Amino acid sequence: MNKTLLNVTVILLSYVTLPAGEWVSLFDNKTLDGWTQKGGKAHFTVEDGAIVGIAVKNTPNSFLCTEDIFGDFILEFDVKQEGKCNSGVMFRALSHADYRNYRVHGYQCEIDPSERAWTGGIYDEARRGWICRPQHNPKVKDAYQYGRWNRFRIEAIGDKILTYVNGILVSYLCDNMTSEGFIGLQVHSVGSHGKAGDRIMWKNIRIMTDDLPPVADDADILIRNHIPNTLCVAEKTQGWELLWDGKTTKGWRRAHEAEFPEQGWKIKDGVLTIESSGGGESKYAGDIVTTEEYSAFELQLEFKISEGANSGIKYFVTEGYGMKVGAGSAIGFEYQILDDKNHPDALEGTAGNRTMASLYDLIPSKKVVIGREISRKPGVWHHARLIVTPCGKIEHWLNGFKVVKYEKGSPLMDALIQLSKYKDWKGFGKWESGHILLQDHGDEVHFRSIKIRDAININ
Amino acid sequence: MNKTLLNVTVILLSYVTLPAGEWVSLFDNKTLDGWTQKGGKAHFTVEDGAIVGIAVKNTPNSFLCTEDIFGDFILEFDVKQEGKCNSGVMFRALSHADYRNYRVHGYQCEIDPSERAWTGGIYDEARRGWICRPQHNPKVKDAYQYGRWNRFRIEAIGDKILTYVNGILVSYLCDNMTSEGFIGLQVHSVGSHGKAGDRIMWKNIRIMTDDLPPVADDADILIRNHIPNTLCVAEKTQGWELLWDGKTTKGWRRAHEAEFPEQGWKIKDGVLTIESSGGGESKYAGDIVTTEEYSAFELQLEFKISEGANSGIKYFVTEGYGMKVGAGSAIGFEYQILDDKNHPDALEGTAGNRTMASLYDLIPSKKVVIGREISRKPGVWHHARLIVTPCGKIEHWLNGFKVVKYEKGSPLMDALIQLSKYKDWKGFGKWESGHILLQDHGDEVHFRSIKIRDAININ
Repeated sequence: MNKTLLNVTVILLSYVTLPAGEWVSLFDNKTLDGWTQKGGKAHFTVEDGAIVGIAVKNTPNSFLCTEDIFGDFILEFDVKQEGKCNSGVMFRALSHADYRNYRVHGYQCEIDPSERAWTGGIYDEARRGWICRPQHNPKVKDAYQYGRWNRFRIEAIGDKILTYVNGILVSYLCDNMTSEGFIGLQVHSVGSHGKAGDRIMWKNIRIMTDDLPPVADDADILIRNHIPNTLCVAEKTQGWELLWDGKTTKGWRRAHEAEFPEQGWKIKDGVLTIESSGGGESKYAGDIVTTEEYSAFELQLEFKISEGANSGIKYFVTEGYGMKVGAGSAIGFEYQILDDKNHPDALEGTAGNRTMASLYDLIPSKKVVIGREISRKPGVWHHARLIVTPCGKIEHWLNGFKVVKYEKGSPLMDALIQLSKYKDWKGFGKWESGHILLQDHGDEVHFRSIKIRDAININ
Repeated sequence: MNKTLLNVTVILLSYVTLPAGEWVSLFDNKTLDGWTQKGGKAHFTVEDGAIVGIAVKNTPNSFLCTEDIFGDFILEFDVKQEGKCNSGVMFRALSHADYRNYRVHGYQCEIDPSERAWTGGIYDEARRGWICRPQHNPKVKDAYQYGRWNRFRIEAIGDKILTYVNGILVSYLCDNMTSEGFIGLQVHSVGSHGKAGDRIMWKNIRIMTDDLPPVADDADILIRNHIPNTLCVAEKTQGWELLWDGKTTKGWRRAHEAEFPEQGWKIKDGVLTIESSGGGESKYAGDIVTTEEYSAFELQLEFKISEGANSGIKYFVTEGYGMKVGAGSAIGFEYQILDDKNHPDALEGTAGNRTMASLYDLIPSKKVVIGREISRKPGVWHHARLIVTPCGKIEHWLNGFKVVKYEKGSPLMDALIQLSKYKDWKGFGKWESGHILLQDHGDEVHFRSIKIRDAININ
């Protein structure tokens, strides 16, 4: 069976022949029976068959929450906004005395009428923050239409969480932090996110909890999988493979050598760690490279830096420059990893081209400021994404934002390289393929969920 | 009447109510009566109601030509190719003793089955070469389908020449070099352009010469107008304006001064010339700038360099750097104009970033080699095109090819500028708007057909 036919069959199976449960309404169109307010003091009422939330000054985020608890479900509802107050719908949400004095926390499907348009993204309220940013998928930006009724659908089944806005898949998240909780309609505190009197309306709120159909096992958007070192079926459908198995050194070796380093690199609890050795460049443990070489690919990984740390992800690494082990890091393009605030190298180089996620010493990463600057801080996991298309278009992404783009071998890059210190490396930047490298710069840095796929079909 | 309604009305008028003449067949489906072969010895015959041209070794370009002469007309025909021999259809073509011993010359609608896919472009055979390159309009690249029958339409009415391939407008040319001539079916000499035995077939060849409908006065492709310092109606529809009127100094002044230079710049016969003064930078005549400033725009002009000449088109020129008249050229981005072969500056700078059409001293222009390198030589008119979109995406074009692209204010440009000599000019490359400048570098260079339009709607 060819793949298209297979996909059609899967779709038919999903939507036609598989069992699906019954819908249960969560709102009786007249009263707030079954709902309880938590958090702030925004005003919730019922008007014309819709729940209306009205923003109020000087009160924190407010939530109108179901009294019932839901684990696996499909939830659908309509939303319309008058005024640009931020909103969202919590699910599998929690509130208890021993977590920040009953602070409502957990998954939230964002409703975002502002210019950034992150509606349908998934925010981990009062916990991890953004865990599925819609900017990975720019074409879904316009799924939500401010000022009219919009249909939302949230599928939370096992560790798969999908959001649809007006029929368009916006988020595909794999996560297993919370398996059940209440549903909560948010009215955000106002100030930068709206103003007093802004109204958010919900209606046709219904849920299915039994005989749930399976979630889609293909998707044309980036899947964010927070379960370390795993691939869900939909990721496999997209061609992703683990570049590190989470347990062994398989597929990796020391740069310029046949074996994995004997010291300095540690594998524990699904985390690959380069240990601190005093900040020297590839002196103690040494860089590690993939045994394979890659030319057109998409790479994802998560990394966590210690305070003041320096490291990097190099690509198109060639060992043909004749450098010896211990003579410094192997040569290639570098996705810089750095604690910008606490490492002096952030201020070196040119125009900021040694800061986090920059193409090291060549192209500064774009500093993304939306409200506040997107976090690059030590001690938390960050998401790196790297795309190299077959025609040499290259992008660096950090935590859901494209921060560097360039064309390998373009006249512009020729000039930039010739003006940089890399001019002394013959053929620098002209490589057809190379290894992927994780850098030992003598500082403690953690890696996990290293995944790669062929980018052969990306233009 | 709003503009859309007006356009609809114009279309209705064009296609429904205006008179249109009668079609006359140029081929009787059986014989070559009315046709005469000129040029090389390729074989022409009739098979199954089609004229078949068959490529033959060791003979120059061959043409099967009408015995009749046509001036204004609409010509339609079908073409199919077997084998990748280059071909085309001549029109308003000439052949006489006093031009290269009867060499067939004049307009040719290209038929190009090769990878470059220039079918529908207009080549001035044995005269000026390419005068309307389809690469200006990348989306028309796939209009022609090799191996099947394709419908061509050529409208040559007054000084407007339009070609359509399978209903898609590929070329919109304004030119007045030749007003009448024969029609000729080309079989190219073979070698790099095909091989012996390659077949080109034409059928359903018909022409209309009376009661011709008017040509389209709008077009969504770049119009190439070779009539100096004029705008055709379709260019005006696209928003083009003359930035120089072809006669006076109106709209221009010396950089840093209120008046046009008293010496060194000459206006004669529709050509604006900076005279030779020994190669100094802005020393004798001085640069001239537009009185207006521009932020998002598209610019076209034609230029002709003398041997060894240096000049440039600067944009985003600000006079706020406090330079004085005579202290060198005013500061801005520069579309370099240079005789690469004969001026030593071509070898200076970095990675070729001082060659013709480069962003001077920053980004090298791409050297376009298709068969041979596209001409940049002295003594002939070249076509420059410059696009600055509202979001700062900038392109330099030379003779129909995009040779430089970059984003104003991007981190990449920040780094490149900081690594270049421009780092000493505060705010270089961050300008919101500026003048357009033609540079006096002490060498004779000619300009004409300087046109500009708002790029407010280009992304």
